Amino acid sequence: MIQQLIEKIQKTHAPICVGLDPMLSYVPEHIRRRSFAEFGETLEGAADAIWTFNREIVDATWDLIPSVKPQIAMYEQFGIEGLKVYEKTVRYCQEKGLIVIGDAKRGDIGSTSAAYAAAHLGSVKVGDTVCRAFDTDFVTVNPYLGSDGVKPFVDVCRSEDKGIFVLVKTSNPSSGEFQDRLIDGKPLYEHVADKVEEWGADTMEGGYSNVGAVVGATYPQMGAALRRRMPHTYFLVPGYGAQGGTAEDLRACFNEDGLGAVVNSSRGIIAAYRKESYEKFGPEHFAEASRQAVIDMIADINRVL
Amino acid sequence: MIQQLIEKIQKTHAPICVGLDPMLSYVPEHIRRRSFAEFGETLEGAADAIWTFNREIVDATWDLIPSVKPQIAMYEQFGIEGLKVYEKTVRYCQEKGLIVIGDAKRGDIGSTSAAYAAAHLGSVKVGDTVCRAFDTDFVTVNPYLGSDGVKPFVDVCRSEDKGIFVLVKTSNPSSGEFQDRLIDGKPLYEHVADKVEEWGADTMEGGYSNVGAVVGATYPQMGAALRRRMPHTYFLVPGYGAQGGTAEDLRACFNEDGLGAVVNSSRGIIAAYRKESYEKFGPEHFAEASRQAVIDMIADINRVL
Repeated sequence: MIQQLIEKIQKTHAPICVGLDPMLSYVPEHIRRRSFAEFGETLEGAADAIWTFNREIVDATWDLIPSVKPQIAMYEQFGIEGLKVYEKTVRYCQEKGLIVIGDAKRGDIGSTSAAYAAAHLGSVKVGDTVCRAFDTDFVTVNPYLGSDGVKPFVDVCRSEDKGIFVLVKTSNPSSGEFQDRLIDGKPLYEHVADKVEEWGADTMEGGYSNVGAVVGATYPQMGAALRRRMPHTYFLVPGYGAQGGTAEDLRACFNEDGLGAVVNSSRGIIAAYRKESYEKFGPEHFAEASRQAVIDMIADINRVL
Repeated sequence: MIQQLIEKIQKTHAPICVGLDPMLSYVPEHIRRRSFAEFGETLEGAADAIWTFNREIVDATWDLIPSVKPQIAMYEQFGIEGLKVYEKTVRYCQEKGLIVIGDAKRGDIGSTSAAYAAAHLGSVKVGDTVCRAFDTDFVTVNPYLGSDGVKPFVDVCRSEDKGIFVLVKTSNPSSGEFQDRLIDGKPLYEHVADKVEEWGADTMEGGYSNVGAVVGATYPQMGAALRRRMPHTYFLVPGYGAQGGTAEDLRACFNEDGLGAVVNSSRGIIAAYRKESYEKFGPEHFAEASRQAVIDMIADINRVL
């Protein structure tokens, strides 16, 4: 799967993914009004508004980008109706040829992690029939429970040609609270990084494994050290744009050949029309604003590569 | 919310929760056959089988117990249909007066954690209308991302009178890989434990806070140390029974007054009919086997308190 992502990145010259993390407040009023008129101020109404919003953004950007990263929490908050739209969004993006990274940060132990891996990457057997649930291409995974929490995901990566990105160093302000603490002279996130390389060793495709790492753009020096430490690991890099990470900051997450990282932007793309620099598009043309923001982001990142 | 849990524990004399973590293979064949006949070998068929299984177990045990802990991964693997049954199970148990601990191990940053908190404990605003999604009483939370990943959950605990259990020391074999590593002379899980006490300080109800901790029964010495370290924190204790933890092992997770911990058993209860000691019930009477296993578990734990 990592090779498919790399090929799409090379074809689009765009090492990015668009974070489909729709807050209801990002959805322009004319869409909300229409959905609420049809379905009421209900979870179904909210989900319908988000679906319309997503679809227009995907329609306006899919030809420019290799991948999207829907954040499942933003759908889960609308319950079953929200999760139906998550599933519909995943399917719609895959039909457009996009690689879908489900940002679910799941992680549990043994058979429970296996169930999450089945839910998001693999399949379940019902009687003699193989059924698939969310079926994204990648999913993000939380490592706090150790190897027996992560390995069930790795097994599915191998059997189904899928991938994962394991949280190593996250982009948020308090990520250092535990992740940066020194253990035997090196921070916890480096211990996790070493495990990620180990977990990925059996699922190599070309120079990279199907076990990637989440490395926040907001901590560039740590990104540089991790890039050296994890030569076979692709990075999923959050924190660009709205969270404060610049193109210069994330340069270090890439290898010399311009590969090795895929940079996410969520708010900066999907809510671009609310930013001063794109407000000329107006809420009615929010998707065109997103397209322009994608073009600008690609140029900005390629500038430093 | 923690006081409601404690009152129910005192009323039932049963500091336990039943883990509703149904693997499809636990569901007796006669139920699977009926569901597959009606809905086919589909995700819907699997979900229907699990719903029937859950309902019979709840009907057979609800009067003996204070709480249940459905593991959402086991539903998520069946996609939307599975999650509908998760929701239906939560609602059914709440109607029976049970406290529902959603075992979701969610955790992300800022607005994303807020969305998870809204999904599982709180509400979302759709237009002017307040809507609720899964609406469990407690949810489990992963602390790897630090305070700004956990605080949005704590805020909802306070505003909605709900609770969380934060992973501190998990019950699985490789939990020590990161959790036991020494930082400034004490293991990571103790650093997390100290944060849990801190996060809980603003949401006290009586002697305990609404921010609890997950502490595995499989590491009794660590449980004892954590019990002393976290005087205001209720423990959710997995690992009893099928995972190898004995009543003696988990004694240390309780305080002198017999409070301070709620012990989970999943497989040992819901799949009791498959164990030699309960096989006399047979698959047709699996729920009666579960009832007997609950009675035996309560006696076993009360024996050491």
